[in-house]
Amino acid sequence: MSMQVENPPPAVVPAKQGAGHPLAPITADEIVHASTLIRRLWPDQTSIQFKVVTLEEPPKAQVLPYLEAEHAGAPLPEIERKAFVNYYLKNTNKFHEAVVNLSRNRVEHHVLLGPNVHGTADGEEILAIEKIALEDEAVKAEIAKLQLPEGTVVCCDPWIYGADGVDDDERMYQCFLYMRDPANPKEADSCHYAFPLPISPIISTETMKVIKVQILPTDADLTVKPVEKYVPRPANEYVSEYQTLRTDLKPLHVLQPEGASFTVTEQGTSTVLEWQKWTMRVGFNQREGIVLHDVRYAGRTLFYRLSLSDMNIPYADPRSPYHKKSAFDLGDVGAGLMANDLKLGCDCLGSIYYLSAVLSDDKGAPLPMPNVVCIHEQDAGIGWKHTNYRTGRAAVVRNREFVLQSIITVANYEYILAFMFNQAGEMDYEVRATGILSTQPIDDGVDVPFGTRVHPGVLAVHHQHIFSLRVDPFLDGSPANRVVYDEAHAMPRSEFNPHGTGYAVHETVVERSGGYDLDFGVNRVFKIQNAAVRNPINGKPVAYKIHAPPFQYMISDKDSFNYKRAEFADHNIYVVKYRDGELYSGGRYTNQSRGGTGVRSWAARNENVVDEDIVLFVQFGINHVPRIEDFPVMPCEILKVAFKPVNFFDKNPALDVPPSTQAFNQSTGLNKTEEKAAQQHQQSMGTAVVGAKGEVCCTSKL
Amino acid sequence: MSMQVENPPPAVVPAKQGAGHPLAPITADEIVHASTLIRRLWPDQTSIQFKVVTLEEPPKAQVLPYLEAEHAGAPLPEIERKAFVNYYLKNTNKFHEAVVNLSRNRVEHHVLLGPNVHGTADGEEILAIEKIALEDEAVKAEIAKLQLPEGTVVCCDPWIYGADGVDDDERMYQCFLYMRDPANPKEADSCHYAFPLPISPIISTETMKVIKVQILPTDADLTVKPVEKYVPRPANEYVSEYQTLRTDLKPLHVLQPEGASFTVTEQGTSTVLEWQKWTMRVGFNQREGIVLHDVRYAGRTLFYRLSLSDMNIPYADPRSPYHKKSAFDLGDVGAGLMANDLKLGCDCLGSIYYLSAVLSDDKGAPLPMPNVVCIHEQDAGIGWKHTNYRTGRAAVVRNREFVLQSIITVANYEYILAFMFNQAGEMDYEVRATGILSTQPIDDGVDVPFGTRVHPGVLAVHHQHIFSLRVDPFLDGSPANRVVYDEAHAMPRSEFNPHGTGYAVHETVVERSGGYDLDFGVNRVFKIQNAAVRNPINGKPVAYKIHAPPFQYMISDKDSFNYKRAEFADHNIYVVKYRDGELYSGGRYTNQSRGGTGVRSWAARNENVVDEDIVLFVQFGINHVPRIEDFPVMPCEILKVAFKPVNFFDKNPALDVPPSTQAFNQSTGLNKTEEKAAQQHQQSMGTAVVGAKGEVCCTSKL
Repeated sequence: MSMQVENPPPAVVPAKQGAGHPLAPITADEIVHASTLIRRLWPDQTSIQFKVVTLEEPPKAQVLPYLEAEHAGAPLPEIERKAFVNYYLKNTNKFHEAVVNLSRNRVEHHVLLGPNVHGTADGEEILAIEKIALEDEAVKAEIAKLQLPEGTVVCCDPWIYGADGVDDDERMYQCFLYMRDPANPKEADSCHYAFPLPISPIISTETMKVIKVQILPTDADLTVKPVEKYVPRPANEYVSEYQTLRTDLKPLHVLQPEGASFTVTEQGTSTVLEWQKWTMRVGFNQREGIVLHDVRYAGRTLFYRLSLSDMNIPYADPRSPYHKKSAFDLGDVGAGLMANDLKLGCDCLGSIYYLSAVLSDDKGAPLPMPNVVCIHEQDAGIGWKHTNYRTGRAAVVRNREFVLQSIITVANYEYILAFMFNQAGEMDYEVRATGILSTQPIDDGVDVPFGTRVHPGVLAVHHQHIFSLRVDPFLDGSPANRVVYDEAHAMPRSEFNPHGTGYAVHETVVERSGGYDLDFGVNRVFKIQNAAVRNPINGKPVAYKIHAPPFQYMISDKDSFNYKRAEFADHNIYVVKYRDGELYSGGRYTNQSRGGTGVRSWAARNENVVDEDIVLFVQFGINHVPRIEDFPVMPCEILKVAFKPVNFFDKNPALDVPPSTQAFNQSTGLNKTEEKAAQQHQQSMGTAVVGAKGEVCCTSKL
Repeated sequence: MSMQVENPPPAVVPAKQGAGHPLAPITADEIVHASTLIRRLWPDQTSIQFKVVTLEEPPKAQVLPYLEAEHAGAPLPEIERKAFVNYYLKNTNKFHEAVVNLSRNRVEHHVLLGPNVHGTADGEEILAIEKIALEDEAVKAEIAKLQLPEGTVVCCDPWIYGADGVDDDERMYQCFLYMRDPANPKEADSCHYAFPLPISPIISTETMKVIKVQILPTDADLTVKPVEKYVPRPANEYVSEYQTLRTDLKPLHVLQPEGASFTVTEQGTSTVLEWQKWTMRVGFNQREGIVLHDVRYAGRTLFYRLSLSDMNIPYADPRSPYHKKSAFDLGDVGAGLMANDLKLGCDCLGSIYYLSAVLSDDKGAPLPMPNVVCIHEQDAGIGWKHTNYRTGRAAVVRNREFVLQSIITVANYEYILAFMFNQAGEMDYEVRATGILSTQPIDDGVDVPFGTRVHPGVLAVHHQHIFSLRVDPFLDGSPANRVVYDEAHAMPRSEFNPHGTGYAVHETVVERSGGYDLDFGVNRVFKIQNAAVRNPINGKPVAYKIHAPPFQYMISDKDSFNYKRAEFADHNIYVVKYRDGELYSGGRYTNQSRGGTGVRSWAARNENVVDEDIVLFVQFGINHVPRIEDFPVMPCEILKVAFKPVNFFDKNPALDVPPSTQAFNQSTGLNKTEEKAAQQHQQSMGTAVVGAKGEVCCTSKL
């Protein structure tokens, strides 16, 4: 069903607060405007559950001339503002998608989606599901069998239901139950993941009722035993009052007495950042969290758009219902929606600027998201150094980094997500995985090859984290880019290579859209090139290379729902031809998805990607085999993808960073450094000077 | 030839300054003592060129009881002090190796080595070689053909000759010539690597004369043209006076108002460090630079000894003499000998303690090496975080790191080498590669697949950096350890795994000494285990896992000298049974070596390595395909190997780190953070409380 609706103006459209830029996230007023127009499509008493009200980014064909005019200081073209909306008729499976033209005050696209297309979880719904699970009589009856001590507090973590094709057309939640330490029930921050219960209610989002109470396997096999009396076990708390804290850690302060080196210009809902020749426009949305647009270095374009596109976390336990644990945290909920309210002095050190955002709630109203992005500089050690051993002069600069960070909490788990820029024209995308393992009950004495016992009675199942970073390049003035890869191969023995030591690096052009793989055996390195622009010194095309860490691809077999749904999880790099709206590599609707709508499908168009407007999806990840050290909260596991210029500049772009000096850095010596004996010989030898007639006449005395 | 020499006491033995510990590096007095005893083996007028006078570490069988007594506060066993010495009869090929028993005042091992066993380069010799090259008449005649402007300063970089089996029994140097910017000859820090010359003198260390002046190929093929008039080209300086420096970088200071969190106890020539439950003994020697002994966490032993064992840098150009460019910077010269004198406020930020060392010179005299190690703490971002979405409470700690850093200058190139420890029981070994590419002349308009033109007339040839870290584990109280590796494999479809999603992790024990490889396709992870000690919670053997980045192995073919010499360069991990003295994975004598004396040969003993005293060599590296951005000095390329506990502790060992708070961290807010609206609903829902009779009675109001 699709309908094109021409609306009369709504009775009340709030005065628009300017978004400030065609790429600026949707404003609070625009959210109200869009949801008002949607509501007017239905009878007054219709209960609507909004899932997403966000910016519908304008077509790139419209934005590129805008950006060109903007940077040239020329008159700006008009670009219509549009909202992308999806919503349910509440307590039904009627899931709709719409595009609202805010400039023309009309709904210009409106379809009923489905079947098997489902909306995200939202905050209100998750809280409602928790309540329903815990108030259900059948659930209570199972809990009662545990014979828990009086006052024990039971918690419910609703999970996205997942998909296996078995009776899962309906949108549901699979809930996992835990309890706080029964010996300490007043502690609201007790780590309930140390007390998983074998009871798992399933709730329908149509009826908002428990439709089944599943009892979980707790042995090594498929056996499911009736719920029995609970065996008391110790707690494992992570909050500080339960620790004997270290007392010998001294404070470490980062001070910027002259302020930060960056400038922030908030323009409506987006923000322009300038730092050390970098400029970029920062947005923030429900799905991706931080989005960067129009990233430039020294005025030269690098990226049209950068964002985390999706992530998938499939679990190793093949038993029902655990086999359906395969989260798409961005697609199923939203990295923006789950972003932490960051606190000064807790999440970063130094001089910090915070950005806030506005998202939408289930009523289609603005949802303020304070301090969801922090911006600061950090020292990242030595940037480059060389000591001339003849003169003893050490030239050294430090590597200052510029960090845009957001932290998301996905129930038990945390991701710290950051774009980082440096003075050598390099950009990193860093993910730190932390938070609490998703746990399940296990019988004493049982070991399984698909998980680790991290606490008495607690199993943390192995799982993969597979991230997909979307990179829309715009290298040095044009979206017409190509991807190539270099490989190093031994030269055959020959007269030219008589000792078998020679090797050569050859470049291969990626001709067709598809998935491509790293190969460290031949040092395969992927590069994004603008073949039309050549380095003035060596004539090579300007390029940025991608350093991505290797990872194990999706382990689930190719016929599995896990594999079909996570369309990005089988290759390090996907290259596709750009199309408006193709932002999410696992498809727009990942909740209980069936596959076929993500990057693997786009790549299957087998399009030419040479010197075209292309998009890359860069995958990286961890196969997380839990250690006991990862519980009750795990030390950060750090992953980094780096983008580095290759023949883009004409020399080291960090050559102009001021030298690292004590006057500038103000470090503290804890002991007296020793003086080096004068090394006169080193300074008076090792060079010869050419005389007036071209002869080499003497050893110089410097 | 081998002889056992019983010496009378030397006429003068300086009063011994206590080394303080059996593992403490050789003292200045001991150096004099050892070299005096060696000199007395020869007639008075014999000219001796000492290469190495260093500690001969006591056998592990003696040290282990010593360490046990030391930590128990028990009486300490006596262990004899010995020096390892090698030296030449000057201007001959007579290369000797000796062990001097300092406690017994005698030379107890003394052999003439060779043939094809050669000593290292030393500082005095390198300077002498430079001078000889530049004063040679044949060299001057070739330089004259360049018709350089008057005043042009020519520099000579002596290179280790390398080995190809062609007329290379003699120890030689292959010199490469460069000049400073002819337009600016007074600049002593001009980057001469931007002006490579096609003239390469070869010098014999026996005659200390130029024995050949090789003219270098400058085209893409084997053609060698007579030296022609120089074509003027631009300079490419890295020192700051030639840059238009950035003016918008604001200072960033790291302050520790209460001082550093570590304690330093200098005991003679070694130093005991204590920081955040870590303890270790730091030494420093000519070959390896930093050596760590007796590394413990919370009193539990982890490593008996850690050091960088060697590195190899083979180059891709197969043409003579470039095919012989294959440096072993530790074995050929010495990481200790090339260590930088570190400067406060330039090489690190914060509160820094410097360690100095004493090495030996060519006269067998002490060579003071001031400030060769810097010790400091750094903030490394968030250590762990979890936000309880029900209460809104964020628990977060920062990750403080403890860094021991040394920087070495290898003529053109720099390596920044650091051991890093954190509060989660993890250790990293980090290498930052920086400095200046080794360059050679290339004709205009010529492109080659084995190098990159980084400046007009300048070719930077591709090269591999292959590092070998020696890890002598002593996990949890015993040197009897094993290496295992985990792999993750999909479970076959079955009744147990009906949806094809399950996977399992299986452990394989490394049974025999040998070389082993990473395999990201199955997430192969190597672990060091003490199988005799089990985790109290989950019964798994205590272990540390190794996270090493993948790299391309030695590309040179298996019959090449490069391959035969770099015995560590063909596998990620070598595991061998411990033998005293087997410290250097490329063999003790790498200069013009022929192979057969390194870790590949030790591994070929095919020994049992299960629950034995074992040693690991962990390899990692870069295939450096130069970018123009790497010139005239390259931004740091960072490599890291991580060691992380696996079921070694009973929970996250960083759980007791004090929370990250603004009171402690004193950060600066650049804007006012927004207040979050009270989320009453989040705090009042999502839990159920068990009543007195075990019934779940209500939704709690917390």
